[in-house]
Amino acid sequence: MKLYVIGLGPGGEEQMTLRAARALEACDCVAGYGLYLDLIKNLLDGKTRIETGMTREIDRCIAARDAALSGKTVAVVSSGDAGVYGMASLVIEVCADFPELEIEVIPGVTAACAGGAALGSPLTCDFAAISLSDLLTPWEVIEKRLRAAAAGDFCIALYNPVSKKRAGHLQKACDILLAVQPPETVCGTVRNIGREGESFTLTTLGALRDTKADMLTTVFIGNSRTKAVGGRMVTPRGYKGV
Amino acid sequence: MKLYVIGLGPGGEEQMTLRAARALEACDCVAGYGLYLDLIKNLLDGKTRIETGMTREIDRCIAARDAALSGKTVAVVSSGDAGVYGMASLVIEVCADFPELEIEVIPGVTAACAGGAALGSPLTCDFAAISLSDLLTPWEVIEKRLRAAAAGDFCIALYNPVSKKRAGHLQKACDILLAVQPPETVCGTVRNIGREGESFTLTTLGALRDTKADMLTTVFIGNSRTKAVGGRMVTPRGYKGV
Repeated sequence: MKLYVIGLGPGGEEQMTLRAARALEACDCVAGYGLYLDLIKNLLDGKTRIETGMTREIDRCIAARDAALSGKTVAVVSSGDAGVYGMASLVIEVCADFPELEIEVIPGVTAACAGGAALGSPLTCDFAAISLSDLLTPWEVIEKRLRAAAAGDFCIALYNPVSKKRAGHLQKACDILLAVQPPETVCGTVRNIGREGESFTLTTLGALRDTKADMLTTVFIGNSRTKAVGGRMVTPRGYKGV
Repeated sequence: MKLYVIGLGPGGEEQMTLRAARALEACDCVAGYGLYLDLIKNLLDGKTRIETGMTREIDRCIAARDAALSGKTVAVVSSGDAGVYGMASLVIEVCADFPELEIEVIPGVTAACAGGAALGSPLTCDFAAISLSDLLTPWEVIEKRLRAAAAGDFCIALYNPVSKKRAGHLQKACDILLAVQPPETVCGTVRNIGREGESFTLTTLGALRDTKADMLTTVFIGNSRTKAVGGRMVTPRGYKGV
């Protein structure tokens, strides 16, 4: 019995790997957040949808598991990569007592990579991915990680910089980074990654602090070597002679 | 005039996005390291290859740029994601004085995501990607980042844990992490990510220190909450009631 966990990439079906598309095709049931299922609706003809709301992830994974146990081929889908702020860990956990289920996680393009490509190449060398959502991680832990990332001179991809319920997280994050990094540090934001209307902006850490981002935005913070080159955000790899 | 920089994903063409495959199809010339070009040779029929050795990346990007300036449609390809330890930054840099060239970076599945999927879901929450290669980054900087990642309780994906010329880097890295993290920290290694013979092993940080990894291996270090579940490496997302 087979249960797939599939990363769809950032947008529609063009952003998916061939491997992900083939696995989806083999499925009877597909479980996911409605918005993500709509992005791939052309691939879901004749398949049963298992939908629950954004905050009912455990129920969704259990429903997918039970459908798989009943003999269906099932996929749980996440946008981006299923292993990065996605559903893969939860699926493995809710299936822990069902070794008869074979779980195959199929990776996808995460927002750090897709948004980075839109901006240029901000994460070329060592980087950290940090979510500013304190729904599942205490805010003190997030602050500790921001401080550590700045101390290590990592490039940073900030997931979930704002939400309806949380105001000021991006500003607080910038203040923590500004204690270590200069205000002219090159930064970038990308909206609607991989979707219609994708757009990006280059900015600085000082200006980012007072920027109003929205829920569709991913934020990129440069390290000490990041620069703007021809309107793109670039962290050099370090080759001599360039 | 168009110059693509394309992330191929970890292995053969099945690991590529549809968008990457379509862009490749539109190209007259493809530049890349021979090993990666061989992995997608079915897609290169009738196209000119621009090949240089592993350490002649600047020459390769300049040759690709010049082919694009002569009117060809050209792709520079990287394995994984072109923006993560890949060619995207170098291409943008060598094209800085040629604004007539439109550079489109097409993201791919990086080894952190692809290797993570093989292991389960080790990077679910905040994570750091660190390369142990000191070819382009001084070793002291790498050590600083390892210390910072451990201080921030990040999950870690270690790229390039060993090479022909560098012995003992993985052991040194583990010693730095062991100063902060307990030896029973759950770790994993993946060999031949996304290619024939892909295999993974779960281990601990204490045991990893004395493991002989090879150049085909990517290493994953858990954070304080990472655990083994049903033979997979899982960092829980933090949902209550699981």
